[in-house]
Amino acid sequence: MIVVGYTPDRYGEAALDHGLAEARLRQTSLVVINSSKGDALADQSFADHTQLQKLEEKLADSGVEHEVRQIVGDEVVDVIIEATTAPTAELLVIGIRDRTPVGKLLMGSTAQRLLLSCRKPVLAVKPE
Amino acid sequence: MIVVGYTPDRYGEAALDHGLAEARLRQTSLVVINSSKGDALADQSFADHTQLQKLEEKLADSGVEHEVRQIVGDEVVDVIIEATTAPTAELLVIGIRDRTPVGKLLMGSTAQRLLLSCRKPVLAVKPE
Repeated sequence: MIVVGYTPDRYGEAALDHGLAEARLRQTSLVVINSSKGDALADQSFADHTQLQKLEEKLADSGVEHEVRQIVGDEVVDVIIEATTAPTAELLVIGIRDRTPVGKLLMGSTAQRLLLSCRKPVLAVKPE
Repeated sequence: MIVVGYTPDRYGEAALDHGLAEARLRQTSLVVINSSKGDALADQSFADHTQLQKLEEKLADSGVEHEVRQIVGDEVVDVIIEATTAPTAELLVIGIRDRTPVGKLLMGSTAQRLLLSCRKPVLAVKPE
């Protein structure tokens, strides 16, 4: 099982694309996690109904066995790390930001915490 | 081609093991990079003759097509990133430290710079 940390933006899409490729390569399934700690309606990283529908369509088209988990109320990092502790979880895929809006090289804190906390290998990808 | 950032310690060994597994899975070759900016004799991350011999033996036993590059005088990050810019390079594998000697969660600056600078996917692994 491949776990993907998903956000409805180009970072999440990059993670999803690579996650699908890895699932095909390893002939395994995909779990896509989209999570929000608090007010999901105001959280840009939480997929709305339309975005979720597009995500489901893309996953259905891929032919890869999959599951989408939308979770509200817990820390995003905790939700994702929890999923990677499953014995069948072999890889976590995340999209990482490499520059701040002013162009400085800086990793997001969520990405950094996932990289530090995950005991399984983490594949960090960037949008093309 | 899979690029591995190698140091003669458990982090480098974890990267090497995962690099070999990925090379087998993707049916491609492995390039193992061990580099030191300055005085290689005093640099713990630079493999000595015995360590290099063991590395070569392990690679030979693996049956995976491989190349070891030991480079002195340039920034480690620059040397590794340069290797990943090859059109055939599909993945960089690095071992990451997650805790400082006092147990604080903190990523090494080399790992962080590699994750930020590499345009190809980076697989970050930890020793078992």
